[in-house]
Amino acid sequence: MTASTRSLGDRARDHLWLHFTDHSGFTSAEVPVIVRGEGPYVYDERGKRYFDGLAGLFAVQVGHGREELAEAAARQTRKLGYFPLWSYAHEGAVELAERITSRTPGDLDRVFFTVSGGEAVETAWKLAKQYFKKTGKPPGKHKVISRSLAYHGTSQGALSLTGIPGIKQDFEPLVPSSIKVPNTNFYRAPVHADDYERFGEWAAEEIGRAIEREGPDTVAAVFLEPLQNTGGCFPPPPGYWQRVREICDAHDVLLVSDEVICAFGRLGHEFGAHRYDYRPDIITVAKGLTSGYAPMGAMIADERLMEPFTRGSTFTNGSTYGGHPVSCAVALANLEVIDAEDLYGHVRANEANFRTTLEKLRDLPIVGDVRGAGYFYGIELVKDKATKETFTPADAERVLRGHVSPALFEAGLFCRADDRAEPVIQLSPPLISGQEHFDEIEQVLRSVLTEAWRLL
Amino acid sequence: MTASTRSLGDRARDHLWLHFTDHSGFTSAEVPVIVRGEGPYVYDERGKRYFDGLAGLFAVQVGHGREELAEAAARQTRKLGYFPLWSYAHEGAVELAERITSRTPGDLDRVFFTVSGGEAVETAWKLAKQYFKKTGKPPGKHKVISRSLAYHGTSQGALSLTGIPGIKQDFEPLVPSSIKVPNTNFYRAPVHADDYERFGEWAAEEIGRAIEREGPDTVAAVFLEPLQNTGGCFPPPPGYWQRVREICDAHDVLLVSDEVICAFGRLGHEFGAHRYDYRPDIITVAKGLTSGYAPMGAMIADERLMEPFTRGSTFTNGSTYGGHPVSCAVALANLEVIDAEDLYGHVRANEANFRTTLEKLRDLPIVGDVRGAGYFYGIELVKDKATKETFTPADAERVLRGHVSPALFEAGLFCRADDRAEPVIQLSPPLISGQEHFDEIEQVLRSVLTEAWRLL
Repeated sequence: MTASTRSLGDRARDHLWLHFTDHSGFTSAEVPVIVRGEGPYVYDERGKRYFDGLAGLFAVQVGHGREELAEAAARQTRKLGYFPLWSYAHEGAVELAERITSRTPGDLDRVFFTVSGGEAVETAWKLAKQYFKKTGKPPGKHKVISRSLAYHGTSQGALSLTGIPGIKQDFEPLVPSSIKVPNTNFYRAPVHADDYERFGEWAAEEIGRAIEREGPDTVAAVFLEPLQNTGGCFPPPPGYWQRVREICDAHDVLLVSDEVICAFGRLGHEFGAHRYDYRPDIITVAKGLTSGYAPMGAMIADERLMEPFTRGSTFTNGSTYGGHPVSCAVALANLEVIDAEDLYGHVRANEANFRTTLEKLRDLPIVGDVRGAGYFYGIELVKDKATKETFTPADAERVLRGHVSPALFEAGLFCRADDRAEPVIQLSPPLISGQEHFDEIEQVLRSVLTEAWRLL
Repeated sequence: MTASTRSLGDRARDHLWLHFTDHSGFTSAEVPVIVRGEGPYVYDERGKRYFDGLAGLFAVQVGHGREELAEAAARQTRKLGYFPLWSYAHEGAVELAERITSRTPGDLDRVFFTVSGGEAVETAWKLAKQYFKKTGKPPGKHKVISRSLAYHGTSQGALSLTGIPGIKQDFEPLVPSSIKVPNTNFYRAPVHADDYERFGEWAAEEIGRAIEREGPDTVAAVFLEPLQNTGGCFPPPPGYWQRVREICDAHDVLLVSDEVICAFGRLGHEFGAHRYDYRPDIITVAKGLTSGYAPMGAMIADERLMEPFTRGSTFTNGSTYGGHPVSCAVALANLEVIDAEDLYGHVRANEANFRTTLEKLRDLPIVGDVRGAGYFYGIELVKDKATKETFTPADAERVLRGHVSPALFEAGLFCRADDRAEPVIQLSPPLISGQEHFDEIEQVLRSVLTEAWRLL
C-alpha cells in the first residue's frame, strides 16, 4: 500500500521512535494517532473523541484549538521567524520578560528564557554553580539536593536531579553530586504518619540534615516542585516550604521552585509559590507558559543572582532556541487568554468540586488515596485499603499496563496510569474544564477501576 | 517613562538575561533589538537593515519572513497545537519521520524527535549507553569521545561532550567519561603540517588511540561534526571520516555525525554524511530542519539500534516538546521550500563563488586563513601572517570585542567574531544568498578588518 492509503497508525510503526515507549506492542497493534483538538478534547485519526485529562502533558491550560494562539504564531512567524538571544534581543522576549516579572514573588525580576522545562532546570543548576564561584565561595559548592521520585527532566544534568531510579540506572554515570532526600508522601509516611505538620517538619529537616552531612560549603541548591508530580501528587504539608526556606537561608543554599508543571494556573495561581506563600531564589517554568502550543521554558531568578554578571563576567550558558520569538509571541497570547478568561479564578472556584468528584471514587476497594490541589490530582491504587498493600510488578504489568491504560483510552479518557512508584492515575485537565468534565472523568475511572479490581 | 514610550532596547535591560552575554556593557548602551526579517536581511527597531551573515545562528536556511511557514504554523496550531509523543503519535511526526528517512544514508531509518540540537546529542549519548547495556556489553561501555573545541550543546551531558574549556570550567563536575581528541585544524597542525591527507590520517588514528587507551569495552560512541564549527570551520581531510568509520567498526563503537549545523543544506547536501561520503550510526540534527522557525531537533538512528527496544525494553528517554506538532508542520513546510527552490543545488552551484569572494580578503595582513565548505566559512585573524601569531587576550578584548564586533554590526553585517579559540569571523548566510550578498559581506569585512589591523 502507498503512504496515502495506509493509516497513520500503521505508518507510524515504520520510522518513528516514540518517547518512553515500549515498542514491542506495535508489532501487532497500530500506534494510536491523535490528529485534532478542540477545547478539552482531542480526536484520533478515526474521529474518536477523548477527554484530555492530562492537558497533553500537564501543559494545555487554555484547551486545544485556540485561534488567538494560531494567529499570534503566524503573525510573529511572518515578522521574525527566528533570532537568537545571544547578545541581541527581540521584541517578544522583552515584552514577555516584563509580563512574567510583573507577577513574580519577591525580587524574582530577571528572566533567562529556555526552550523547555528540562533546559530551565539545567540552567538553574548551572547558574547556582557559577554564581557561587563568582561570589567567592569555595569551588566545591556545586552539589544539589532534590527529592525521591521527583522528575526534573531527562538531559543528563536534569536527569541527575531526577529521583526516579528506573529511568536513570542505564545512563549512569550522570552529573555527580546530586543528593536525594525524602518527598512529602504522607500516605506512606515512614514517620509521624499521624501528624501531617510534624511529618512536614521532619521532611523539611531531612533537607537540612542532608546539607549538613554533605557540608554547606559543598551544596549550591535545593530543587523542589511546589507539589510533587511523580509518585502521584504529593502536596507540601503546612509550614514545609517556610521551614525549607529558613534552612536554605541558614546555609546559603539557593532554593529553586521547579514549577514546570505547577506555574500558570495548575494550582489556581500564577505560581505555586503564591499558593503556598514562599519566596524561592529561582523559579523554573515551561508547559503552561505557552499552554504547550510552542516549546518554551524560563528560569526566573532573583535579581541579586545576576549581579555578578553585570560586572564583567558572563553567565556562560545559552541555547539556540531558548526564548524563540514565535514561542514568546505564543506565550504572550496564551497569558492574555488566561487573564481574559480569569482561568486562575476559574480553577480556584472549581477545585473543591473537582476534589469532591474524585473523592467519590474512594468507595472503590482499589482506590487507596486521592490527593492533589487545584486541577492536579493523583489517585493511588492498592490491593488492600486497610494495609495499603501495593501492586506487585506482575500486577502492574497485567492490571495497570494490561488493563487500566488501554481501557481508559478505549473509554475516551486520555490520562496516565503510572507505576514509576506505587501505581497512580494522574489527572491534570485543561483549566477550562468544569463539573461536566469532572463527572466524565469520574464515570470512566469508576468503570475502569471496578473492572481492574476484578482482575487483581 | 511608560513601557510604551521607552525603546525596546532600553526596556530589554530591565528584566531580560541574554544568552552567553556580558551584561556590563548595557549599563550605558541599549540592547540591540531585532524586530523583523525579510529574505537574508533583518531589521532593528529603528529600521536599520543588517545582512544576516549567520542565518540567525546557523539556522535560517530559507531566509526570513516566509509566508509558507507562517501558514503551516497557523494551520497546525488550529488543528492540534500540542500533543506529546509519549506512547502516542500525531500526524506531523509520522510524515516528517517518513520524509527524513527517505534521504538518509545507510539504514538510518528511525527518528527520535527532540526539541533542540543539544537534546538530540543528549539523546544519542543516552541511546549509546542504554543500547550497549541491552545488548550484553560490559556495563562500563558508556564513555564518549569528541574533539577539542567542538561545541555539542550546553545541557550538562552535551556540555561534557563540548570541547571548549572556557564554557565548561565553572560547571564542573559534569558527566564523567568524556574524552577529547584533536580536531582537524590543519592551519595549526601540530604534525604533518605539510601533508593534508597524512594529517587527517593522524587525526583519525588519534581517535583509535584514545579508544585503546580507555579500553574499547568502556567506549560507547564518538561524536564528530562533518565540518567542525567552533575554532572556525575545520573541514575533514580526505579519507578522515572513512578511517574513523573503520576504527569505530573495529572497536564496536557508535559513530555519531553531529549535523546540527551541517544538515539540510549548509554544505549543499541534505546531510554532511552525503558530502563526505560516510555512513554514521546516528545523525543528530536541528536548526536547518525547520530553518529555525520552530524549535526542533532529531536523533536519526540506524534501525539496528532500535532492535533491542522492540523486544520488551524501553528506551527510557523523552521530553515534553520533542517532536512538537507545530514544529513538525513547520519542518515539513521548510523542507518543501528547500526542495521547491532546489536550495541544495543553489548552494553547490554558488559555493565556489562564495569561497572565491571570501578568499579575496587574504590580501589583508590580518587574515590568516579562510576555510570552510558550502555556505559555511571561518576567517581566522592573526597578528602576523608569516608566523601565524595569534591575538593576546588583551588584543581579543580591545580589537575583536572592542572594535570588530560592534563595527561589523554598525556596518550592517550580522555575523560572529568569536575567540573561544583563535579569533575567527564566522559566516553562515541563508542558503538563498547569491553573489550580491557575498560581495556585501566581503566589502564590510574588508573595511572593518582594515581598521582592525590599524588598531592592533
